[in-house]
Amino acid sequence: MLKDYEFQKIEIVPDIEECLGNAKINLSKKQMLLKDKKLPVVVLFEGWGVSGIGTTLGKVIQNMDPRFYAVETMNKISDEESRKPFLYRHFLRIPENGKVTFFDHGWMNEVTTQYLHKDLSKKDYKKRIDSIQKFERTLVDNGYLVIKFFFHISKDDQAKRMKRLLKDKNTKWRISKEDLWQNKHYDDCLEVYDDYLDQTNQSYAPWYVIDATNKKLAQLQVLEVLMGHIQNRLDFDKGDALLIENPFELREEIDLNAIDLSVTINDGDYKKELKKCRKKLRELHNVLYRKKIPVVIAYEGWDAAGKGGNIKRVTSGLDPRGYTVYPIAAPDKGELNRHYLWRFYKRLPKDGHIAIFDRTWYGRVMVERLENLCSENDWQRAYNEMNEFEKELYDWGAIVIKFWVQIDNQTQLERFTDRQNTPEKQWKITDEDWRNREKWDLYEEAIVEMLHKTNTKFAPWYVLESVDKKYARIKAMKILISEIEKRLDEE
Amino acid sequence: MLKDYEFQKIEIVPDIEECLGNAKINLSKKQMLLKDKKLPVVVLFEGWGVSGIGTTLGKVIQNMDPRFYAVETMNKISDEESRKPFLYRHFLRIPENGKVTFFDHGWMNEVTTQYLHKDLSKKDYKKRIDSIQKFERTLVDNGYLVIKFFFHISKDDQAKRMKRLLKDKNTKWRISKEDLWQNKHYDDCLEVYDDYLDQTNQSYAPWYVIDATNKKLAQLQVLEVLMGHIQNRLDFDKGDALLIENPFELREEIDLNAIDLSVTINDGDYKKELKKCRKKLRELHNVLYRKKIPVVIAYEGWDAAGKGGNIKRVTSGLDPRGYTVYPIAAPDKGELNRHYLWRFYKRLPKDGHIAIFDRTWYGRVMVERLENLCSENDWQRAYNEMNEFEKELYDWGAIVIKFWVQIDNQTQLERFTDRQNTPEKQWKITDEDWRNREKWDLYEEAIVEMLHKTNTKFAPWYVLESVDKKYARIKAMKILISEIEKRLDEE
Repeated sequence: MLKDYEFQKIEIVPDIEECLGNAKINLSKKQMLLKDKKLPVVVLFEGWGVSGIGTTLGKVIQNMDPRFYAVETMNKISDEESRKPFLYRHFLRIPENGKVTFFDHGWMNEVTTQYLHKDLSKKDYKKRIDSIQKFERTLVDNGYLVIKFFFHISKDDQAKRMKRLLKDKNTKWRISKEDLWQNKHYDDCLEVYDDYLDQTNQSYAPWYVIDATNKKLAQLQVLEVLMGHIQNRLDFDKGDALLIENPFELREEIDLNAIDLSVTINDGDYKKELKKCRKKLRELHNVLYRKKIPVVIAYEGWDAAGKGGNIKRVTSGLDPRGYTVYPIAAPDKGELNRHYLWRFYKRLPKDGHIAIFDRTWYGRVMVERLENLCSENDWQRAYNEMNEFEKELYDWGAIVIKFWVQIDNQTQLERFTDRQNTPEKQWKITDEDWRNREKWDLYEEAIVEMLHKTNTKFAPWYVLESVDKKYARIKAMKILISEIEKRLDEE
Repeated sequence: MLKDYEFQKIEIVPDIEECLGNAKINLSKKQMLLKDKKLPVVVLFEGWGVSGIGTTLGKVIQNMDPRFYAVETMNKISDEESRKPFLYRHFLRIPENGKVTFFDHGWMNEVTTQYLHKDLSKKDYKKRIDSIQKFERTLVDNGYLVIKFFFHISKDDQAKRMKRLLKDKNTKWRISKEDLWQNKHYDDCLEVYDDYLDQTNQSYAPWYVIDATNKKLAQLQVLEVLMGHIQNRLDFDKGDALLIENPFELREEIDLNAIDLSVTINDGDYKKELKKCRKKLRELHNVLYRKKIPVVIAYEGWDAAGKGGNIKRVTSGLDPRGYTVYPIAAPDKGELNRHYLWRFYKRLPKDGHIAIFDRTWYGRVMVERLENLCSENDWQRAYNEMNEFEKELYDWGAIVIKFWVQIDNQTQLERFTDRQNTPEKQWKITDEDWRNREKWDLYEEAIVEMLHKTNTKFAPWYVLESVDKKYARIKAMKILISEIEKRLDEE
């Protein structure tokens, strides 16, 4: 897209100021429509150093209502961010419904710069591009409008601009080492940028190359593309997203009905094993920390299956500075108004740390599916989206383990009744629990489908037989120990 | 508190495990009471390296419900945090009502370490202690329970523990350079810690020195102090907080009634001045960025006074990557459930950046006062709390400027009527605006008191005469230019 690009030599447009003024006002009107329609918009500005992205952004937002947009300058990665998956810092900044995030550079700049400086191998660079394609696709599938600009200037023009800025002490700080490097290696950069644009130029999230030779014209182009894009989306329903076939290798199928729930452990063995496993997990926690390996543990299971008590035992020997338990209830407003995975991205551990989720993103294909909290297309799509999410975690280096805590219908009834009849336990049981119980069969169907479609090699499901809760606890601890040891052996 | 401390030589307590077990269960019950009473609790763990804080924390939280507490490990300051005021990272982590934050080291460790390593001068160290005293006081005044532990071990004991941990490759990473330094300079550290504890040992937020020689006993002491403290607070209403006399130097009083609102600017001059000021502000913005000076601009004013349009002109020449406008509406749930300054701490700029608040923390002494959204004691106390807050910003190095955008009652009526009658403007006017208008006199009284009590030398109020909005815009820009230039001259 860039290599054969011909820069326009238009210099004078007589009524450009008037055009710009009108466009800015029109955009601010469109913004109010976005707000009314609750449409979230991601605008990515990428391009050469000193190509005028900042100035353009300044013009674009000038008439917009600051309550409904944010500008995110992404060129520096913080210490904290460098300890999370690559997409974390970008995913975290996606807007709420009805709002716009303008990214001043973003994921393209991050990966192309690292690749150009050989901080990313060719293989990892390709993986990143794959992640980015999936990231942009899942945003669009989940209702986001994604608009991408590349600000293009010639080598000479870039050199001239830098020279001018470097002359003045109040502007010379604007020129980074990276800008100078870019100009010196303009052709190499062009090659990489061109390839990147080609590979990420999807119909759902197309690139607009902006000729930034003339700044005012660049501004006008951006404003017009934004308005056209927004109007188009307001005019036409985008329809259901395609359901993508799962391209991930799955493990052997779990037959939930064949699980033997009568397994137990006696009290003596339980105490002994608990002590042993606790000690082992504490030791492994130290090694994980030292090797900076993150761990993500997902707990799902029937109400009253014993998830809470299980988690308590797993964590009982761990240093609290190295793990966090996240109980997942209904999403709050800011969470509900964003991509459903946003609230889980937000809670990812730092490398070397453990995050335990008491209920998870799988709510999408269980409660949200059964209570019609999302569309059928949404939950159908979610299996693949969640596999992709977990694959990102795995590629980042995380150990991902998912527990399904299993009991039978009769055991749940007994535990519910016990909770109802025991004053100290009454807070643990609600009308909703009873209502959910009535849908046991529907849930079971959803669970079987979930276990089938998301039991990947990189993020396996393990069933914990929890009619005997003690048995389930020891089993969970042993699985964790063995999965962690397996990974450590591979290191 | 530490120098004359005698370590207990108790080694064996036969039923310690049982005591600990009971204490943990009791604490988890107290936690549910905290939740019901919506009481927020800050627990600070400070102490010597390897004194067992992590292990103790692990035991303390073992039976607690993870939905209602967080553990915050504070020993590293991120790049982002280092560009904010000292208290920022701590303030950001205070819990919501009904929840507990356990700080694993915190503000004490931060300042004593910096002071011991001579990264803080004696003068700045004293300033920090003053900030900390105010921070803890305002938390308690605003309903927080603040409990502080210092984990104390002897020099020999520390050396022995480190030696043991260093032997094993899986635990030796736990010993930081800082731990080793501490042991080598134990007496110097003791001196500084002792002095720090003395200076911050307030009745509202007392220190508990924990003899950490025996780990289990230390755990038991912590659990018992926590329970005692919480129970005490549940049993006794803490009553109104003291109103502290304003110890800050004020500027000359503003007489709102003496303001001449007939001032105007003609269109020709306006355009000329706007262009000139815009250019100047852009230049200054560059210098501020380069010198890493943060700017906080607060806008308050009558409804329809023209705040939005004023802000739009002030920012029109600025690089959007260097400023953010924060429109302040009613607080969301997470904000409402924390200290009222939390949501402003959260929005502070990085150094070198500008934050513009469209409505501010002064809502406390205007709308919250008049609509009874807080108690009389709350808003009476707020003048001093807000001065303290702004003093923190000033001491951090920020330029703090506050604008009161003034119009008369008749002008507001005309603008309201115009909005009501113009279809494109109707969204700008609500029933609430009309209701507020009825309380003009009460608001005026509150505004006069606010301008009187918070017009400090370090964070001055400026009245913008905004019957002629254009006049007010140019005046705002000129004040900003002159205040910024004044500061740059001092550099």
